[in-house]
Amino acid sequence: MKADTRERRDLTALLKPASVAIVGASEDPERIGGRPLRYLIQEGFKGRIFPVNPARKSVQGLESFASVAAIPESVDLAVIAVAADKATASLEQCADKGIKAAVVFSAGFAETGAAGRALQDRLSEIARDSGMRILGPNCLGIYNSAIGFYATFTATLQSGLPKPTGVGLVSQSGAYGSHVSLLAIRRGIGVRYWITTGNECDVELGECIACLAADPDVRVIVAYAEGIRDRDALLNALSLARSQGKPVVFMKVGRSDIGAEAATSHTAALAGTDAIYDAVLRQFGAYRAGDTEELLDVTYACAQGVLPKGPRVGFLTISGGVGIQMADAAVAAGLDVAAMPDAARERLRALLPFAATRNPVDATAQVFNQPELIDGFLDIMLECDEYDAIVVFLTYVAAAASMVSPVRRAIENAHAKYPERLIALVIVAPEEIVRDYEQAGCLVFEDPTRAVRAIAALHRIQRSLQVPATRAQSDAVAPAASLPEAPVGEQEAKRVLARAGVPMVADRLARTPAEAAEAARALGLPVALKIASADIAHKTELDGVRLGIDTAEAAAEAFTALVEGVARRRPDARIDGVLVSPMVGNGIETILGVHRDPVFGPVIMCGLGGVLVEVLDDVSFRAAPFDEAEAQRMVLELKGRALLEGARGRGPYDIPALCAALAALSRFAAAHAEAIESVDINPFVVLPRGQGAVGLDALIVPGRASRRP
Amino acid sequence: MKADTRERRDLTALLKPASVAIVGASEDPERIGGRPLRYLIQEGFKGRIFPVNPARKSVQGLESFASVAAIPESVDLAVIAVAADKATASLEQCADKGIKAAVVFSAGFAETGAAGRALQDRLSEIARDSGMRILGPNCLGIYNSAIGFYATFTATLQSGLPKPTGVGLVSQSGAYGSHVSLLAIRRGIGVRYWITTGNECDVELGECIACLAADPDVRVIVAYAEGIRDRDALLNALSLARSQGKPVVFMKVGRSDIGAEAATSHTAALAGTDAIYDAVLRQFGAYRAGDTEELLDVTYACAQGVLPKGPRVGFLTISGGVGIQMADAAVAAGLDVAAMPDAARERLRALLPFAATRNPVDATAQVFNQPELIDGFLDIMLECDEYDAIVVFLTYVAAAASMVSPVRRAIENAHAKYPERLIALVIVAPEEIVRDYEQAGCLVFEDPTRAVRAIAALHRIQRSLQVPATRAQSDAVAPAASLPEAPVGEQEAKRVLARAGVPMVADRLARTPAEAAEAARALGLPVALKIASADIAHKTELDGVRLGIDTAEAAAEAFTALVEGVARRRPDARIDGVLVSPMVGNGIETILGVHRDPVFGPVIMCGLGGVLVEVLDDVSFRAAPFDEAEAQRMVLELKGRALLEGARGRGPYDIPALCAALAALSRFAAAHAEAIESVDINPFVVLPRGQGAVGLDALIVPGRASRRP
Repeated sequence: MKADTRERRDLTALLKPASVAIVGASEDPERIGGRPLRYLIQEGFKGRIFPVNPARKSVQGLESFASVAAIPESVDLAVIAVAADKATASLEQCADKGIKAAVVFSAGFAETGAAGRALQDRLSEIARDSGMRILGPNCLGIYNSAIGFYATFTATLQSGLPKPTGVGLVSQSGAYGSHVSLLAIRRGIGVRYWITTGNECDVELGECIACLAADPDVRVIVAYAEGIRDRDALLNALSLARSQGKPVVFMKVGRSDIGAEAATSHTAALAGTDAIYDAVLRQFGAYRAGDTEELLDVTYACAQGVLPKGPRVGFLTISGGVGIQMADAAVAAGLDVAAMPDAARERLRALLPFAATRNPVDATAQVFNQPELIDGFLDIMLECDEYDAIVVFLTYVAAAASMVSPVRRAIENAHAKYPERLIALVIVAPEEIVRDYEQAGCLVFEDPTRAVRAIAALHRIQRSLQVPATRAQSDAVAPAASLPEAPVGEQEAKRVLARAGVPMVADRLARTPAEAAEAARALGLPVALKIASADIAHKTELDGVRLGIDTAEAAAEAFTALVEGVARRRPDARIDGVLVSPMVGNGIETILGVHRDPVFGPVIMCGLGGVLVEVLDDVSFRAAPFDEAEAQRMVLELKGRALLEGARGRGPYDIPALCAALAALSRFAAAHAEAIESVDINPFVVLPRGQGAVGLDALIVPGRASRRP
Repeated sequence: MKADTRERRDLTALLKPASVAIVGASEDPERIGGRPLRYLIQEGFKGRIFPVNPARKSVQGLESFASVAAIPESVDLAVIAVAADKATASLEQCADKGIKAAVVFSAGFAETGAAGRALQDRLSEIARDSGMRILGPNCLGIYNSAIGFYATFTATLQSGLPKPTGVGLVSQSGAYGSHVSLLAIRRGIGVRYWITTGNECDVELGECIACLAADPDVRVIVAYAEGIRDRDALLNALSLARSQGKPVVFMKVGRSDIGAEAATSHTAALAGTDAIYDAVLRQFGAYRAGDTEELLDVTYACAQGVLPKGPRVGFLTISGGVGIQMADAAVAAGLDVAAMPDAARERLRALLPFAATRNPVDATAQVFNQPELIDGFLDIMLECDEYDAIVVFLTYVAAAASMVSPVRRAIENAHAKYPERLIALVIVAPEEIVRDYEQAGCLVFEDPTRAVRAIAALHRIQRSLQVPATRAQSDAVAPAASLPEAPVGEQEAKRVLARAGVPMVADRLARTPAEAAEAARALGLPVALKIASADIAHKTELDGVRLGIDTAEAAAEAFTALVEGVARRRPDARIDGVLVSPMVGNGIETILGVHRDPVFGPVIMCGLGGVLVEVLDDVSFRAAPFDEAEAQRMVLELKGRALLEGARGRGPYDIPALCAALAALSRFAAAHAEAIESVDINPFVVLPRGQGAVGLDALIVPGRASRRP
């Protein structure tokens, strides 16, 4: 976070200004300095508008001023539509006049290299010193459709303006934000606020999300990011949205290495690791869309305001084949295609003897002859209380003149009687018919699979909104005892972690064969022996491990063999002795880890040992710290989780113990965020249910910060 | 295959009739018997049209006949638009008149139960006895848009007819076929033939696909199936399409258990196992679409006729963010986002200094000011010869009046100069502008990710069309020596498989401890001992196995221990002795199997042993028989294939030996299709590259056919 010299204003002046100055106002409504003026005039912006253009007396019919200083009244917000080299001076004048917020369209800043970066740093300084909030530079602006405030030069608004309802959208990219705004408007989705943050010299994504989360007029938040500059701002904003029950539909590009590279070179923001973005967005309750189509489908569905209470979905179709397709898609998306109860099936058959009644329910082409079947079937399906959502596939039939009014009536009845159930129509029809059905109280899709996927997304969002919001700050955790500053040996690493609440196997350092034998007797046979040396990270590769030693004498012999062998292979290594530990058996090997992500800080990793993690990369991540419930969600994301739950006739294993260890490790990592570069606990053995879990080996690498003198 | 009593006609009369009778012709153009008549008249069907309706003198302006017998000329095709109970008599009259083909709309046959099934069997009999080809019953008909032949009552054609080019579509479901036809027409995709097969009493899916594959006017085939009645017809049709270089875009519903159950109850066709459908469709070169949107995208892209020659894709964008999204999608879809060569990047920067030039290439919003940049950039990207396909993201910009003509020119130039390269525009524009760009020689999508996925699909199709077409018939393989009829013991199973070319470990049956010691010496130490009994399938569970025996004396002792132990645990089992085999080490354990699929007959399975197959179900399938090249594609589908290729610092392993064994097993399974229920070879150990592979244990379960007395 920046250290502000003046108190930082909130974003009210940016989102709801009472007056707007346009620096670089143009008479030509197609130019960058002309378009926002045209939109403001045309859309009846209620506040005062002050064109600033020293070369003209008036611009687009409004009195023009030579400078912002020349404006005789106070101004809330200035739009800067001049070249980069003039933007700084303009902003200084705005700050001098006490303008509260500025929107900087100008490009030619950090995105162009070092000189531009320096210029942009000056903008950040102006914002910090004056308290004036600056959006951009290199952005496409902002709009608040409810008050006719359009401080943007995007061309997409020329084909139509949004309804001022529901969605708040914030995008780091102006082009992408415009594309989504256009598609949303065409889809009939209301967009209340639209913000493009560009280079983010001051106002950045997280603060905008928080602002939208707090705004009572916003129902759904859409966010587009290429990188994140302020972790805590983002995570706290997501937590705020969750606590307000508002879905956040999030698009983060750079999934692939090539994409991530392009994202890094495209923006100044940090890229971070995509798998960690994925995990952390989920952890903080955001829904990450995979592509733009999904983003729009889910936003559209959320904006209607009905989230299905559970995973049970019913299908009413006039094509058996599409019914099956939808059922397939629902199962693939994790929904529950529950069967209709027998009594309800009887009632369906009474209406239409040859209907398929299980689910999917197939009313067949007979609905052409008996349109009232739709109302009848839908009512029976809703009344039996099996379904949280119902998808009705009617394709082009719903557009037939004879069908519109009975279908509309069926939807209205269903919506009036069961307002908390989600109803989605899948039809191919002209736009006015689509809007008509939406008015009646349902979602409308053209593609059956997309309808099903959107419902599955809403269900996941609904579940995620049930999770209590958590604070993001790592300072929520009191730092534990300080860590050693040099790389620590295995024994010390185990002690440190055990103190932090991560169970580690008991051990004793033996310095002689006799001590090894004594340790084996004391710890209980059989035992494992491992060479102890801070200089040796990979003991197995140096043949520095002996397992399953089952007598004290054998332990003494193993001591000698180990020390002599390793001394021969690595004469340079300082050998402290041999660690003796009891053997731990019959568990599932997992790997726990901590590493420091450039965006999200300390991140916890959990994977299943062996082929799953090595070949299939089956690991899951969470930002530290988190609690046991979050740890459980983390473990359930593993592809091989069935191993822990008891596949292959073995188990179940002690998942609660694993979760407790993960949560403890996460608190430890958060408390020592700066002092730790990475932690590896490998293997961490999860024993059968009720018997706990225990780490057998550990490595802690101190952070650069703590290694500094 | 049915045993035809008369020679079976081909489908010419069905697809290209010279004259059509409509039995049950109606004056009302909205009724089932009226709509085809209206379409035929309206679309100028060139042949003769004979309404049959005993109650009227004329129907829709044409002379009406009392019966087909009363028609004074010969007739190629009859449409049967009467109730099920009258359809049989009508068809008998058609057959008597020598009509060559009939389309039966009537429902009320096999889909309604046993009585309907009997009625439908009568239709099959009429087809068989007369040689008249019957489409349906319970179908929505057929059209050939090039000759105005519309023997269908689908309402979807009322909003527009297709261009008579490119696509041949065959669907078991009339409703789904209509839905896809409508969407294709709206998308501007030409549909030449459209066939709905309904209950398939005679004409079924495979034969239709073959017919479309052979038709020179068809460029792409779209098929929709709920189940398959004739394996060989389908697979030979797919092979024919492949040999003709025609993509087959296939939709098969019933992926999930619930979907498969619904599919089984919805149609009379066999469901089979979805994973096997998936594998066999791929094996025979069909592209299986996951949903309707993908089906249409891929069909649309194929219909244009340019398949990218390789996986290299370039991106030209005006939004950096969307460029990254597209790169992410391309990497996820297996495409190669190759970087631009340095010299070409220099040339791009000469046109626009601040452009991103690596790939994605970002021309930025500057194209608004310099529309000629699109032509210049596109030409440089094509000229550098790095890309088989290029996606150009212009969103709404391409719809701006000032942009249409420069963008069109850029496409035309690119297409003229590089006709074999695929160019896809991603834009948001009115339909007429979209069609205009398509005419210029490119694909047009609205969603960037869908464009990328379609290109990836085309690339996979292109690769698949390079694979030589194979015959599907299992009789292509000469039967090997006959198999024993009772379940066989491990030793005999290994001999049978080894003779068939699947390498199996050497073994000797020892009947005494001395024989065991002798066998161990002869085979080479160390050895494994396993109890030999045809009554015991799972030897490990009865502690019937000893591994790593390293002296002859130990082998004799192990013999005694094994025999006594198993005799105690299973006193009823007849023990033949103990099998002695050399130990095989240091390989990757796989599992090979054969099982009989209800649709596709003998199917070969390959999986990686241990957790991958048990927890993650990591197996792949192929229909038998197949060659080594197909076996290799099969192995490469395994998620854990990296293990074989040499992950974790071990390997690579002998994949060619594994492929040879799979191909041999597939020939064996095909030759004994009826005699074998299943084969399990577990483990089949793949040794390091060059050292071969060997099965350690095998089980053959004879088929029901061979077990009959």
